[in-house]
Amino acid sequence: MTPVNLSAKLDQFSAHWSPKIVAGYNGNDVMVVKVLGEFNWHSHLDTDDFFLVLKGEIDIEMRDRTVTLGAGEMFVVSKGVEHRPVARQEAHLMIIEPSGTPNTGHPETAVVKDRI
Amino acid sequence: MTPVNLSAKLDQFSAHWSPKIVAGYNGNDVMVVKVLGEFNWHSHLDTDDFFLVLKGEIDIEMRDRTVTLGAGEMFVVSKGVEHRPVARQEAHLMIIEPSGTPNTGHPETAVVKDRI
Repeated sequence: MTPVNLSAKLDQFSAHWSPKIVAGYNGNDVMVVKVLGEFNWHSHLDTDDFFLVLKGEIDIEMRDRTVTLGAGEMFVVSKGVEHRPVARQEAHLMIIEPSGTPNTGHPETAVVKDRI
Repeated sequence: MTPVNLSAKLDQFSAHWSPKIVAGYNGNDVMVVKVLGEFNWHSHLDTDDFFLVLKGEIDIEMRDRTVTLGAGEMFVVSKGVEHRPVARQEAHLMIIEPSGTPNTGHPETAVVKDRI
């Protein structure tokens, strides 16, 4: 149980689309991630997907609509809903997923989430 | 699935220690809350307790130590750990708990968490 300064954690890395685990909550990973450009279209069949924008702005594209989120705005993509995060400029996010959830929706393409 | 501006949600109420549900995530309530003064000592035997400070500063007192959290800092109190949040000036938080978790640790003293 250690206090986590999200901004200080984000200062520790520069890679995009590479979530870093900063805390655990009931079997979920609380992560920070830097994003830029377009991620892949994906869905998680067994979990909702939690996004909180800390800095910058992102679009969450879904098949039927797109939501735009700025700093201080959060959004939960319901389980099973196809989505694609897009950031036109670098944005910083806090995200929450159950531990072991593949970020791309598929284990074979998922990045390893390091703890920092 | 609606974007949630946390600051705008916080502008909708003024009561302290009265969490408002702003989103759901896998059976958890994502809430915003305004705090001022001392809460009661309590623990949750069946869940961790997630805190993110959005504005101001709080202490999370535990029996063996106290952590101080400022804006942009988060902390997870592990399940079963006695704690008491204290805010010397008004602070704004995002908190996450499984739906139905009594905020005081006991159903008979818990506040009703409205959705806003």
